[in-house]
Amino acid sequence: MDIPKEVWEMAVMAKQAARKLGALGRGVKDRAILRMAELLEEQKTAIQAQNARDVEKAKKEHYPAAFIDRLTLSDKVMAAMVTGLKEVAALPDPVGAVTSMWVRPNGLLVGRQRIPLGVIGFIYESRPNVTVDAAALCLKSGNAVILKGGKEAIHSNLALAKLMQDALAEAGIPAAAVQVIPSVAREATLELLKQDELVDLIIPRGGEGLIRFVAENSRIPVLKHYKGVCHIFVDEGADLDLAETVCFNAKVQRPGVCNAMETMLVHEAVAPAFLPRMHARFREAKVEIRGCPRTRAIDPQAIQAKEEDWGYEFLDLILAVKIVPDLDAALDHIARYSSNHTEAIITRDYDHAQRFLKEVDSSVVLVNASTRFNDGGELGLGAEIGINTSKLHAFGPMSLEELTTTKFIVYGNGQIRT
Amino acid sequence: MDIPKEVWEMAVMAKQAARKLGALGRGVKDRAILRMAELLEEQKTAIQAQNARDVEKAKKEHYPAAFIDRLTLSDKVMAAMVTGLKEVAALPDPVGAVTSMWVRPNGLLVGRQRIPLGVIGFIYESRPNVTVDAAALCLKSGNAVILKGGKEAIHSNLALAKLMQDALAEAGIPAAAVQVIPSVAREATLELLKQDELVDLIIPRGGEGLIRFVAENSRIPVLKHYKGVCHIFVDEGADLDLAETVCFNAKVQRPGVCNAMETMLVHEAVAPAFLPRMHARFREAKVEIRGCPRTRAIDPQAIQAKEEDWGYEFLDLILAVKIVPDLDAALDHIARYSSNHTEAIITRDYDHAQRFLKEVDSSVVLVNASTRFNDGGELGLGAEIGINTSKLHAFGPMSLEELTTTKFIVYGNGQIRT
Repeated sequence: MDIPKEVWEMAVMAKQAARKLGALGRGVKDRAILRMAELLEEQKTAIQAQNARDVEKAKKEHYPAAFIDRLTLSDKVMAAMVTGLKEVAALPDPVGAVTSMWVRPNGLLVGRQRIPLGVIGFIYESRPNVTVDAAALCLKSGNAVILKGGKEAIHSNLALAKLMQDALAEAGIPAAAVQVIPSVAREATLELLKQDELVDLIIPRGGEGLIRFVAENSRIPVLKHYKGVCHIFVDEGADLDLAETVCFNAKVQRPGVCNAMETMLVHEAVAPAFLPRMHARFREAKVEIRGCPRTRAIDPQAIQAKEEDWGYEFLDLILAVKIVPDLDAALDHIARYSSNHTEAIITRDYDHAQRFLKEVDSSVVLVNASTRFNDGGELGLGAEIGINTSKLHAFGPMSLEELTTTKFIVYGNGQIRT
Repeated sequence: MDIPKEVWEMAVMAKQAARKLGALGRGVKDRAILRMAELLEEQKTAIQAQNARDVEKAKKEHYPAAFIDRLTLSDKVMAAMVTGLKEVAALPDPVGAVTSMWVRPNGLLVGRQRIPLGVIGFIYESRPNVTVDAAALCLKSGNAVILKGGKEAIHSNLALAKLMQDALAEAGIPAAAVQVIPSVAREATLELLKQDELVDLIIPRGGEGLIRFVAENSRIPVLKHYKGVCHIFVDEGADLDLAETVCFNAKVQRPGVCNAMETMLVHEAVAPAFLPRMHARFREAKVEIRGCPRTRAIDPQAIQAKEEDWGYEFLDLILAVKIVPDLDAALDHIARYSSNHTEAIITRDYDHAQRFLKEVDSSVVLVNASTRFNDGGELGLGAEIGINTSKLHAFGPMSLEELTTTKFIVYGNGQIRT
């Protein structure tokens, strides 16, 4: 198999398809997405049979249980895929909207109109349900997508691609709108990342290693986040019941994800009252506490935090805790160690809330709410294809609008430049 | 001189300055910009003396006249710099605006707020007036900027940097908000392009060679256009007087710029009436016509166009002309050869106008107006730091808003995720 030629041809076909997709109305795109949902229900057994091939191989090769779990298209995951497709079909179509329009002194009528980005390369790990979620968001926003999933999910992904292409064909949409790269070689990923004349955007999703590999090898713009080192600052005078509820949720509800809290900063004035009750609650949930010396003076059970614990993404039931003298010290700590992903303040002080919102340089900044809300669905964007912590194009969670751009449209009647 | 260390230190200082700049109100930024304008008038002779050193050296080294012209800070150029600064000061401040805000079912109040990008690296050729224009736009939008101009303008640029830093200091803004790299070595550019932990965006401005060098060597996102191959399609039934006026303006008013017309497509139904009068007008202005065989059948004086003339950026008084059978053929030609920069249609047909606006995939698409209007000032954005033909972040001319991004701000009262 000639991988460079194959990937290049897929990109050429994707670009041709993208030209058609940009001009499609909402109806035909939604029909295709809803047809995918129907076919997923009709062909559930066949899809799960292909998935079983992947799962068996992974088990034989002793992949960890969490990996096998993410790889498996259980009945529950299949049902969630169907629901997800129906939700995307129900979302508004961002394409074609004129977001503003104004008249120039010479009479030119100038507007900005939303258009698809074109061709998106989506690179991810072995979670076959993501194949369908990502394809639906790209299609709804008028983009062609080339999907490169983890090698362990190849049979699942190819079966899902076939199903989606059947739905596209029934709706009269070119099959190249949604393509899965059939090769499992890393060379195929590298080839995709070279197609800067044909592919407009790369979105990688997965662990930090995958994302760094993509960012370092891509000639195409990449929207990504490496990690989420989320901080919560519990301010002087905070409602300690609220602080306990929110901090517990942020750390414990799902510790392995990017918007979980990794470091808790506590104002020295509330630390003696707050830390004992908070840490007791954490310990019930088996959270390991790594504290600064002042934290350990209050809670001797805490392990001594090392320098490398600040700014570290544990993705586990481990929390770094630091006592700070004031808001400025909290802001300085965050400026130094945060990953620009998500930070929150727990406070009753109006000025502190406003300063925190203004001065923290992260994609989502919250007052009195859990960091776990950094999610396209939870923030009201409808769905999410990823989170971007570089500031270009779309800082934070990305949904349908973030998969579009705007062009200028100009209505004139003979204007020339003098 | 240790170039890597020097550039890294400048980037560190820029990032520190950026944290302060993001929190500045409009008043202090405008005061600094207006003070720059005053100092430019007060120190005009001293700046021009430094510029004279650059100009003399360039003359000795036999640079072309057009190059010397762009390098020279004449009285007229100095006055334009002052006017430009006053105009930027008068523009609205994009930073801090909440562009939308909504309530979630759980009571979270979620908004998107405009923030600066952070640190911008601006790389350009030997036009010292651009040093001031670019710095003012970055400062007004709350960004720190590191400027790397052409080596031939180094004395001019360092003098202007000193002047601007004096104005910043008087306004109480860190001098590192505006820095010119003192080294003229290409190594300094390469080092700047490596600072992906400190610099958020690179904007290159200049010839295609410079831009390709920057894009190929940068680890930081780059907003750029390589070239502008602008097309005008003169449709069947077009107002031929209007077509002649607009096409003449688009080709002749300033042929050396990216938004000048390079290829004219003419519907076969109007070609016999339109081409003789249009070409006669072009020839008066010394425009060389390179035509397709059908064009040459109508105008035997036209030179035979070669395949490489289609999609070529002449940047000169040369025009490629092609007769096409219909709108679809014009759209196909544009899809194949355009640079996604600027295209226009001259038409009286409502459906053709709407189809052209919808289907042409360029940053600015016009009906019955000159391609020369692809410019931030002309479209009403107030000013321009560059034009981007990649679709990410800001497709088309970029002004103050395009130098910002949005973060999510969330007001809660104890919400957790369940």
